[in-house]
Amino acid sequence: MDFLYNNLIYFIPIMGFIGILFMLGKSSWVTKQDAGDGAMTELSGHIADGAMAFLKAEWKILSYFVAVAAILLAWSGTTVATSSPVIAVSFICGAFLSAFAGFIGMRIATKANVRTTQAARTSLAQALKVSFTGGTVMGLGVAGLAIIGLGSLFIVFYTVYVKNVAGSTVNGEDMARALDVLAGFSLGAESIALFARVGGGIYTKAADVGADLVGKVEAGIPEDDVRNPATIADNVGDNVGDVAGMGADLFGSYVATMLATMVLGREVASHDNFGGIAPVLLPMVIAGLGLIFSIVGAAFVKIKNETDSVQKALNIGNWASIILTAIATYFVVQWMLPADDLHMIRDEASGVLKEGASHFTRNGVYGAIVVGLVVGTLMSMITEYYTAMGKRPVLGIIRQSSTGHATNIIGGLAVGMESTVLPILVLAAGIYGSYYCAGLYGVSIAAAGMMATTAMQLSIDAFGPIADNAGGIAEMSRLPEEVRHRTDNLDAVGNTTAATGKGFAIASAALTSLALFAAFVGVAGIEHIDIYKAPVLAGLFVGGMIPFIFSSLAISAVGRAAMAMVEEVRRQFREIPGIMEYKAQPEYEKCVAISTKASIREMVAPGMIALITPIIVGFTFGPEVLGGMLAGVTVSGVLMGLFQSNAGGAWDNAKKSFEKGVEINGEMFYKKSEPHKASVTGDTVGDPFKDTSGPSMNILIKLMSIVSLVIAPHLNANVQKSASIDHQVKKEIRVQSMHVNAFKVDKKG
Amino acid sequence: MDFLYNNLIYFIPIMGFIGILFMLGKSSWVTKQDAGDGAMTELSGHIADGAMAFLKAEWKILSYFVAVAAILLAWSGTTVATSSPVIAVSFICGAFLSAFAGFIGMRIATKANVRTTQAARTSLAQALKVSFTGGTVMGLGVAGLAIIGLGSLFIVFYTVYVKNVAGSTVNGEDMARALDVLAGFSLGAESIALFARVGGGIYTKAADVGADLVGKVEAGIPEDDVRNPATIADNVGDNVGDVAGMGADLFGSYVATMLATMVLGREVASHDNFGGIAPVLLPMVIAGLGLIFSIVGAAFVKIKNETDSVQKALNIGNWASIILTAIATYFVVQWMLPADDLHMIRDEASGVLKEGASHFTRNGVYGAIVVGLVVGTLMSMITEYYTAMGKRPVLGIIRQSSTGHATNIIGGLAVGMESTVLPILVLAAGIYGSYYCAGLYGVSIAAAGMMATTAMQLSIDAFGPIADNAGGIAEMSRLPEEVRHRTDNLDAVGNTTAATGKGFAIASAALTSLALFAAFVGVAGIEHIDIYKAPVLAGLFVGGMIPFIFSSLAISAVGRAAMAMVEEVRRQFREIPGIMEYKAQPEYEKCVAISTKASIREMVAPGMIALITPIIVGFTFGPEVLGGMLAGVTVSGVLMGLFQSNAGGAWDNAKKSFEKGVEINGEMFYKKSEPHKASVTGDTVGDPFKDTSGPSMNILIKLMSIVSLVIAPHLNANVQKSASIDHQVKKEIRVQSMHVNAFKVDKKG
Repeated sequence: MDFLYNNLIYFIPIMGFIGILFMLGKSSWVTKQDAGDGAMTELSGHIADGAMAFLKAEWKILSYFVAVAAILLAWSGTTVATSSPVIAVSFICGAFLSAFAGFIGMRIATKANVRTTQAARTSLAQALKVSFTGGTVMGLGVAGLAIIGLGSLFIVFYTVYVKNVAGSTVNGEDMARALDVLAGFSLGAESIALFARVGGGIYTKAADVGADLVGKVEAGIPEDDVRNPATIADNVGDNVGDVAGMGADLFGSYVATMLATMVLGREVASHDNFGGIAPVLLPMVIAGLGLIFSIVGAAFVKIKNETDSVQKALNIGNWASIILTAIATYFVVQWMLPADDLHMIRDEASGVLKEGASHFTRNGVYGAIVVGLVVGTLMSMITEYYTAMGKRPVLGIIRQSSTGHATNIIGGLAVGMESTVLPILVLAAGIYGSYYCAGLYGVSIAAAGMMATTAMQLSIDAFGPIADNAGGIAEMSRLPEEVRHRTDNLDAVGNTTAATGKGFAIASAALTSLALFAAFVGVAGIEHIDIYKAPVLAGLFVGGMIPFIFSSLAISAVGRAAMAMVEEVRRQFREIPGIMEYKAQPEYEKCVAISTKASIREMVAPGMIALITPIIVGFTFGPEVLGGMLAGVTVSGVLMGLFQSNAGGAWDNAKKSFEKGVEINGEMFYKKSEPHKASVTGDTVGDPFKDTSGPSMNILIKLMSIVSLVIAPHLNANVQKSASIDHQVKKEIRVQSMHVNAFKVDKKG
Repeated sequence: MDFLYNNLIYFIPIMGFIGILFMLGKSSWVTKQDAGDGAMTELSGHIADGAMAFLKAEWKILSYFVAVAAILLAWSGTTVATSSPVIAVSFICGAFLSAFAGFIGMRIATKANVRTTQAARTSLAQALKVSFTGGTVMGLGVAGLAIIGLGSLFIVFYTVYVKNVAGSTVNGEDMARALDVLAGFSLGAESIALFARVGGGIYTKAADVGADLVGKVEAGIPEDDVRNPATIADNVGDNVGDVAGMGADLFGSYVATMLATMVLGREVASHDNFGGIAPVLLPMVIAGLGLIFSIVGAAFVKIKNETDSVQKALNIGNWASIILTAIATYFVVQWMLPADDLHMIRDEASGVLKEGASHFTRNGVYGAIVVGLVVGTLMSMITEYYTAMGKRPVLGIIRQSSTGHATNIIGGLAVGMESTVLPILVLAAGIYGSYYCAGLYGVSIAAAGMMATTAMQLSIDAFGPIADNAGGIAEMSRLPEEVRHRTDNLDAVGNTTAATGKGFAIASAALTSLALFAAFVGVAGIEHIDIYKAPVLAGLFVGGMIPFIFSSLAISAVGRAAMAMVEEVRRQFREIPGIMEYKAQPEYEKCVAISTKASIREMVAPGMIALITPIIVGFTFGPEVLGGMLAGVTVSGVLMGLFQSNAGGAWDNAKKSFEKGVEINGEMFYKKSEPHKASVTGDTVGDPFKDTSGPSMNILIKLMSIVSLVIAPHLNANVQKSASIDHQVKKEIRVQSMHVNAFKVDKKG
């Protein structure tokens, strides 16, 4: 154990490498599977090409953005003592790894889809194995890269800024500087996530609506017909939105949660065996454990017979990874944290005790982690209830479809609004409970606990769209009934996991934002965020409004981007003779490029709001008003995210219910009935709600928080300059002076 | 002037009486006007009977509620030193006057409608005179009763609690007690407003939808056909929702604003000629002035020729009252407030200076009042822009109607979300500006300034539905083309004033809530509401969620209440033979009763949320968490109110635009075209948005704040009991000890 004690920080990236090794193994296994006959491979080849076309176009734009942002960051890093131009390097690493994780996910998803279809020709068990293994490649890739990236950079910055300062006794200010620079990694990851999630959301719905409007309505050809130039874009969109978008979102949450917990961990006075930095290392260790146990849990996901429940297999794997991680975390917490009192300090220089920050124990820290696990699980369950077929909310919308389009819409909106209640109560109880357990460090370690099994969560999430695509390929390739029956089985489970995944993503974004918020307050060096002060209250109002304008822009963008797609498809039908007679192939990649460009262009305005508003507010009105604004954004963003995602999910499943037929007041209704038409209206309204504006709320609240955290040292410098009478008052209420013990990594016990 | 100085508090209710005298004169003038021929009077008689039936049913339920609440208040008044059982008397007075004001408005509206129709047979000028005079009766009645009620009770409580304590030197604690008891008046008014606004909103839409579903769809008879038992309920609904609901809403805002400013005024240290209570008296004096100048402004509202602009006449009257009030207020502020420094104190016992509370001057106070006037005007203008025909937002929805129901809905939702941006920025700037001018007292006096001309605002608001009803009566009585042309002219202006009135109502509710919020913090005796503390942040989340569940319940309630109406209409068609042949009269009053009962039953759940949540949260988690929750409710409620009201208004006018024909991509579309059908879907979705859930946000945020203010002394008592180490810290930061000068009403200068 001595070796472990002394070299723990080096073991963190090693756990990430283990994840990547397993990922490579699984990836090569998937690639080796049979990809089926000519029609199937051609189809999946087009989708894979389209996905690459999207990534290339995205990367081109992003490279400019990353370059400009990195220069600005490098310059700003020179302006305050607590930062460094090296932050630009972190930023570039974060951006690169986030983009790379998206690439891995997209590539495996476009390979696994057709191989799942082919596997479904033999058995359900084999189809599940291929599709879920594809999902685990994504899950392990995202989590592995995040841990390697953050862990390695931490080692570098720790060595440069902290360790080499006078050997064994370490200045806490230096650790603050190391973490400030590390925040750039999270900013890079979250910026790329913005493009992936919002751009991807606009892309998938623009392609979907555009393909339908010209293909089905104008040209009179069926959905997913190969003659439609936009059909590949439509299929690419599913991967872009559901796979890459979700992956980037969770990559961002995962990194941001660890980072925020590390920043708060620096402020925990701990007499531990790691020279006082155990609370800083803990979130990364927990993430590493979660990754390892996600690999173990994934091994449980298998079925033997055709009649076995796929959902049950996924649940067993999920619970296995959660329970094993929870047990292992208990021993790690006991091992790493000291048996005596822990408490929050402002910083070791002033020693001001944070008001309301309680003393706590290592058992309290473990309690907070358990709270986080429970919150994540409950949020997923509630989301499933509000969007599942056969439950009260969806049944209500079905009933209201019988009186027309308007009542269907009213029903869905009411369900969406109602669906905010339980998740908010769970979240509030989680905040309250984790704070009770271990103060503000508890709130952020709860988020870390919840995110620990991200690899497993993401594996299950990515399995859904792979199964969905596999079903589409089976349908288009006219494979036998039994094949489609098997892929339908997987697809149905995929719909449920998509809903629960969204609940988990929102919960993680909310807790991550709160952790970042708490870290921001500490780094900005403010005592309170007092909404009794009118300017702070004004900030709260402005913050609350931002998710509304962001949603409005995202929803409108889908409309405009769909129109651009419609024009391109019309042009191809007009200018390329022979498409309709299968004699000429449509220029799929042009539609893909149009959709990509439109989506990236359309997401600039909402993206800029998220990036620039905190900077303007922070430097104009100071950190406390910015804090008020962040709180407003977070509360309003979580509410709007839940409202829109759940309304959209409920509308979708209300429409899907008509496929098997539904009973309203004793009468049966099927597809093409009047109530079904009304339900299609609801589903169309719900599309941008659940796939564009709703999920982009996650990125919005996280990105605004991480931008604030990155600029916090600059705002703090401003505060110090203008400190006058207020400073005197603060000095008087200093209750006691505390010094964090030396930051040295050598064993004591 | 000596006489004025010494007796100012007695002049306040006198100004209210002047308003009531003018109201009586105008009311008797309207009643004397010709009510037209037999068909017209019969029709309006049914509407008037229906309105009374609603009021009777409402009062029956409300009398139980008022009795129970009064007993609870009287009991709770005995439990803490700073309150008194007399608060129950205030409560009953507030409830009674609010109900009485609703009665006045409803009665005059049901008289003025038919008389406007008759007047429109001669000239537009005469029709405007009758309808606007009807509106002023409502406006003057609401404002007059509010000032008389609050002013008289203040005299009583001032005499009982403050003046007779040892003659000239007065204890500030006694003033606190007088104002605590006075808060019951505002609670009573706002509770009745909840029933009027929410119940009325459910009523009007239930009757509307119910009448349409059975009448137009099932029985195949036209809209507003006398054979439809629900048609009277439908017409009553317009008065119940738009007249009585809006009146009760503004009555509540008007009273609450004055009260909150008085509570904060007590905490302003002022060496004025009124023995230091000028800041307490000022809001009532400003309200009195605004009432007087509303009477003056109303005299400007007239036209001479058929071609004169009705909107211009209303604008001239509105601006006259605002400008005159602004000028008069300047001199009153100079006269009442001292030339030297003013500042906020915590209370005269501890003398703790509130953190962030700036010192200010009487010019600052005047500046804050001007800020309030500007905020109200801008909010009205922005609302008009987002809901007016021919402007970008509505034109966008029209264009999106061409591609179907779903895109129409998406367009309206995007417009509604976008419409929150400018009002929130105006509001935030208003909060910031008024705070800059005069601290927290500035925020509340800004609200008082904005509400000063409530009488005029409400006159213009009530004119709208009267003109609307007049047009309906003209249509149903088949009067000549020129009559309908005149009432259409008035109705079109009424649509605009309805939109601007909603903007004003939301702005007033927002500022009122903030003023109440500030008053609550003072009375509850807390130093900060620090959202950096996790429990407070949890409160913020829960508060933000409440407007969502409230809206969901209100929207769903409309659906259920409409179903109850449908069943009653079906029963009458079935059980009363001869209705369809005009041989038997339908039992209109039964439909009215059904709708009334359904609406009152359906509003219990949302109403209880508003009333009980602050009590539970306050007593369980303490005043600071309650403060966080109130902030969440206010921010989220204002956003949801703007979103829903403006989306509904925009959908409505997009639909109305088709009546004259609209051009989409070079093609003209009229009624019954496919895009028109899509616009009808949007309008139906918008109905509960703009007339039920949207406006009820106003009441929600005010009522939760006033409930919190009423329970604040009880929470403060709890704080005092548990004060320990925290109290010691507070003592140390006491910067200086201040004593408010004696509360005596005799002249010094």
